[in-house]
Amino acid sequence: MPKHNMPDTPHFAVPFGGRSHAYTEKEIEKVRQIMRDSTGLTQGQEQHIFENKLATFLGVEKAHAVSNATAGLEIAAQLCDFRDGDEVVIPAHTFTSSAYPFVKHGAQLIWADIDPSTRVVSVEQIEPCLSKKTRAIVVPHLYGYGADMPGIMEIAEKYSALVIEDVAQAIGVRIDGKMAGAYGDFSVFSFHAHKNISTLGEGGALVARDEDHSRLIPQLRHNGHCNFTQPREGYWIPAMGNVDLPSLNEKALLPNNFCLGEVQCALGAMLLDRVEKINCDKRQRALRFIDTCSEKPQLELHREDSPRHNYHLLVAKVTTGNRDEFIRAMAFDYGIQCIVQYYPLYRYSFYRKLGLGKAKCPNTDEFFDNMVSFPFHHTLEEDQIEQIVRAVTSVLAKV
Amino acid sequence: MPKHNMPDTPHFAVPFGGRSHAYTEKEIEKVRQIMRDSTGLTQGQEQHIFENKLATFLGVEKAHAVSNATAGLEIAAQLCDFRDGDEVVIPAHTFTSSAYPFVKHGAQLIWADIDPSTRVVSVEQIEPCLSKKTRAIVVPHLYGYGADMPGIMEIAEKYSALVIEDVAQAIGVRIDGKMAGAYGDFSVFSFHAHKNISTLGEGGALVARDEDHSRLIPQLRHNGHCNFTQPREGYWIPAMGNVDLPSLNEKALLPNNFCLGEVQCALGAMLLDRVEKINCDKRQRALRFIDTCSEKPQLELHREDSPRHNYHLLVAKVTTGNRDEFIRAMAFDYGIQCIVQYYPLYRYSFYRKLGLGKAKCPNTDEFFDNMVSFPFHHTLEEDQIEQIVRAVTSVLAKV
Repeated sequence: MPKHNMPDTPHFAVPFGGRSHAYTEKEIEKVRQIMRDSTGLTQGQEQHIFENKLATFLGVEKAHAVSNATAGLEIAAQLCDFRDGDEVVIPAHTFTSSAYPFVKHGAQLIWADIDPSTRVVSVEQIEPCLSKKTRAIVVPHLYGYGADMPGIMEIAEKYSALVIEDVAQAIGVRIDGKMAGAYGDFSVFSFHAHKNISTLGEGGALVARDEDHSRLIPQLRHNGHCNFTQPREGYWIPAMGNVDLPSLNEKALLPNNFCLGEVQCALGAMLLDRVEKINCDKRQRALRFIDTCSEKPQLELHREDSPRHNYHLLVAKVTTGNRDEFIRAMAFDYGIQCIVQYYPLYRYSFYRKLGLGKAKCPNTDEFFDNMVSFPFHHTLEEDQIEQIVRAVTSVLAKV
Repeated sequence: MPKHNMPDTPHFAVPFGGRSHAYTEKEIEKVRQIMRDSTGLTQGQEQHIFENKLATFLGVEKAHAVSNATAGLEIAAQLCDFRDGDEVVIPAHTFTSSAYPFVKHGAQLIWADIDPSTRVVSVEQIEPCLSKKTRAIVVPHLYGYGADMPGIMEIAEKYSALVIEDVAQAIGVRIDGKMAGAYGDFSVFSFHAHKNISTLGEGGALVARDEDHSRLIPQLRHNGHCNFTQPREGYWIPAMGNVDLPSLNEKALLPNNFCLGEVQCALGAMLLDRVEKINCDKRQRALRFIDTCSEKPQLELHREDSPRHNYHLLVAKVTTGNRDEFIRAMAFDYGIQCIVQYYPLYRYSFYRKLGLGKAKCPNTDEFFDNMVSFPFHHTLEEDQIEQIVRAVTSVLAKV
């Protein structure tokens, strides 16, 4: 949280929170065991186990552990193989990392609007942005809600566009019975501190549907390392390992170092055993909160009583035009730290300086300017949730 | 270790080793404590503590934690602000990550040879490579030996070249009383599993001497995140945080996500308390080994009885022209896994494909083709060292 140029902030009885969940003693013990006993600490069997388990969980062929979701998006952007003039359609209502890797690898961004009720993109918002220039579409399953992937895949195929699912917030979410992340040409997962499961604060994963793409990922992740192709007379001949230049469509791709250590991979594998429980807990709690608010027309919440929403975050639109008063009262009168998410990317000086400062996204503007995100990490106590509900009731009665 | 296209390898009684050191119970307990109690898991106070402690340790103004040393080199390469035709002088006798980030950011590599006795670059090898086109010089303190930084800085200044110290293997090494990494315009550290201290298998740090460079690093490391410059009416107005485009010499630099989590930072800070002890242990052990071999003219070792060498690795040149027989006998007759390092970068197909396959580096070729690197991790038992010495003696008597 930036601390400069701001008036005093209160001490928060219920802070928004810097981490989403606790670790069990069993998980902590696993970390201890690897620190003590593992013969290697990176690029070893724990990564292998984690990747296999994640692939099985998602119902995909292969998943790749990476250092964070941005790293996954960087590799996806490399594999998109952009040519001059190629465009990437992406909603501006998302985290900056969903967008800038595509700029870095040569694409022009086209801002799509969002659906006002689900707050994610659907075919309706994407379609007007598509053209012959469209090379890819980025679909963030924001807040933990799975976007309409069957519809989006259909329209993408019509335009021969690649689809990148940003599943950072939506692991375990099902869309028409299939996992979020199992639809796109690429899908990216985050295990950052804020996410429903976190591999010690940083971590991510990348899935590629195309086998040629998938085969390139380990090399792009790890400095171009690969095996020698010729027969070898000994494990040290001609060297211990090979380094080759990955290439796609006869174009060289320079590699990266986006490796995730063994301890983090082992923890990731264990957390997959309880991500469904965490998602379910959060959804049940969100539904109770939403139903409590059902007679408060000043707050508009997105109700989805199915595995299509994991309620990574709990957000609402304040319909009375006084969102800032609402947040101020929640913070200063009740000590509850509500926040706002996601600043439309075209408003940041980052994107303005890149010539991406203009957009026709009325739903994006309207939602951001009136939205509020409640503290909603998994470790909140039931009485803290009640405290939030009571504060909301009192504040809405006043403002 | 690649397993394909190779004949059977023996079971190694003394493997080369996938990790360099053990963790103490206190270090493991610290990890447990952060997993249990920390309010955040990334970009928090542990990073702050680690960075301050590392800066103090090195005697520099500011150090920045990054996800790995390659990430540090990527940012350094960005900050070099290469223009068309700019050259980077670098020895080919180093790990590939020392080199490819500079290619990625637009520089032409010029291969420098190494000094045959120290196996690192000195002024003598660098000087013939310098010209008006030289923008930067990369100096890896390979094997843990500190290169002649006073001399190199002097020659670099003459050519207005930036100097990047690759201190991945040489943390804690002193050159003329000053730390390796405290000389260059940039210096990069690694806390990878193989290194003298490791932050759970992955991790690194970057130091920049110039304040303008240093100030840009947090933003380049973390998605362009920064504070708003205007006065703010509340912590959520206009958004929770800002994203701006870093720029240097009026040129935009696109950011990255190279963050290192709190657990890893906390561990790094603790390990700094015993890195001098680890270095000293390794040096004392290396000197004993070297002195034992002093009457074996078939092996040429680099003896340095001072903090200028931390003996991260223990390497020797086999002077009798039968290095491969030596390694084979060590492996198959005595179960000791010697390896070879570092394949001259210009021999990898990676660099050949980039047009960097040619070099006049006779010392590099001569050393690599005759070198051997012994198992030398900190956790080797004294009797394993004796086992290696006995095997060396027997093998040399035979081959």
